[in-house]
Amino acid sequence: MARGPLRVALDQGSGHSGDPADALDRLAERAREAAEAGARLLVGPEMSLTGYNIGAPALARLAEPADGPLSRAVAAIAADTGVAIVHGFPERAGDAVYNAVQLVDAAGARLATYRKAHLFGDLDRGAFTPGPEPVVQADLGGLRVGLLVCYDVEFPEAVRAHALAGTELLVVPTALMLPFTEVPERIVPVRALENQLHLAYVNRCDTEGDLRYAGRSALIAPDGSELLRAGAEEELLVGEVDPEALARVRAEQSYLCDRRPDLYRALTV
Amino acid sequence: MARGPLRVALDQGSGHSGDPADALDRLAERAREAAEAGARLLVGPEMSLTGYNIGAPALARLAEPADGPLSRAVAAIAADTGVAIVHGFPERAGDAVYNAVQLVDAAGARLATYRKAHLFGDLDRGAFTPGPEPVVQADLGGLRVGLLVCYDVEFPEAVRAHALAGTELLVVPTALMLPFTEVPERIVPVRALENQLHLAYVNRCDTEGDLRYAGRSALIAPDGSELLRAGAEEELLVGEVDPEALARVRAEQSYLCDRRPDLYRALTV
Repeated sequence: MARGPLRVALDQGSGHSGDPADALDRLAERAREAAEAGARLLVGPEMSLTGYNIGAPALARLAEPADGPLSRAVAAIAADTGVAIVHGFPERAGDAVYNAVQLVDAAGARLATYRKAHLFGDLDRGAFTPGPEPVVQADLGGLRVGLLVCYDVEFPEAVRAHALAGTELLVVPTALMLPFTEVPERIVPVRALENQLHLAYVNRCDTEGDLRYAGRSALIAPDGSELLRAGAEEELLVGEVDPEALARVRAEQSYLCDRRPDLYRALTV
Repeated sequence: MARGPLRVALDQGSGHSGDPADALDRLAERAREAAEAGARLLVGPEMSLTGYNIGAPALARLAEPADGPLSRAVAAIAADTGVAIVHGFPERAGDAVYNAVQLVDAAGARLATYRKAHLFGDLDRGAFTPGPEPVVQADLGGLRVGLLVCYDVEFPEAVRAHALAGTELLVVPTALMLPFTEVPERIVPVRALENQLHLAYVNRCDTEGDLRYAGRSALIAPDGSELLRAGAEEELLVGEVDPEALARVRAEQSYLCDRRPDLYRALTV
């Protein structure tokens, strides 16, 4: 596919918590809206298909393999609407359950599944095994797309690893709760800026148990500017990822070239 | 010395460019003001004693060893006023000239000299050898103080290395020019937040050749909040670094403990 701008839709919202059938119905509707808006990629939040704060037993019960029925249903929606989709789900692999996100292309082919590597507090640690791979990527419309989940993006190392591996659009489904608004508003834009890449951060905005999610999803350009920014409520935002913008920013000055990797060994110990 | 709050003065300003005698006169005055304000540490900008954008030949001519006359003059001011000082100067070591900063304590003892590791563009590369050490620290009033210079702080790896080595107050003299205000306003606060340390970023605000420095010096708390923030003009700001604030932030949640160093090896290649 030609390497032009990629129109991306951020789906800040989710179906009824703990109800994958409802989440899939909702996703099909959003994919149609995204297609009508000219988007070629639709990104949902962390655990978009099942809910997140539903307890470890429910997550384990709803967990499926990366090619299970949930994944196949999403693939069918993608193929129906002609829109690539990133969705979040609990992934079953043997005895392990991972906090996973998956990218399927506009023909319904599974391109990549990423397992959250940085687990957040008891919520994650009580339910999930930490992911073993720092960088999972796929090509979409000639653009190198990388995947992280929520807390991962707060670690500069995780995003740097993507930049070094050539990620041009970093997609980060999240379930970030109040009061941590400094993450979408301060940390996320700096991650894009310091790594000179596009970053799509897509959050929930519902309430689950004692958690109130913060919304504030955003699409950030490689110079740190906000291309899209949601409020606290449900919203479908559509914007454009432009590979030329990335090339322009990197031509002016390059953080990646000015690094001193020989001095960073303490970071790996 | 007891481990209590450390009162710090940020000296946003500099003497006449290329005139160390004037810079030392000015420094003596600022050190007296800082002492009167109860400060125990005074921090100046990058190349505070000589000027920065004065050309490689002038920098080489003004360069001195870490224990040279400039350093001894600063030590005398520190001892006179009872205020520890961080100053910037071109350091001569054999054939090499480094972009250096030095910490002398309130008795005039040289505690640490750091050589800028990340060189910025032709301005730095035409004049300086890159520093060989990622982390240079010293204890001051029971607080672990680390040193970086300007562009260094824009690299998350450089600040992370300090956090991992136990730096509690990171001191960053800088000569940041317009239009790069995203560095003091966006990147610097996130560095403090993501590493949960205090960060003092002290800039010039004068004009040197075709450069207009951006001011906006800041003291940032370990939760990313601004304890001090300068405007664009010359200013002496005084604020407090509180080790208890750091302990509180780290007790709530710990970025340092939740890292996955085994996944970061690509950063060192």
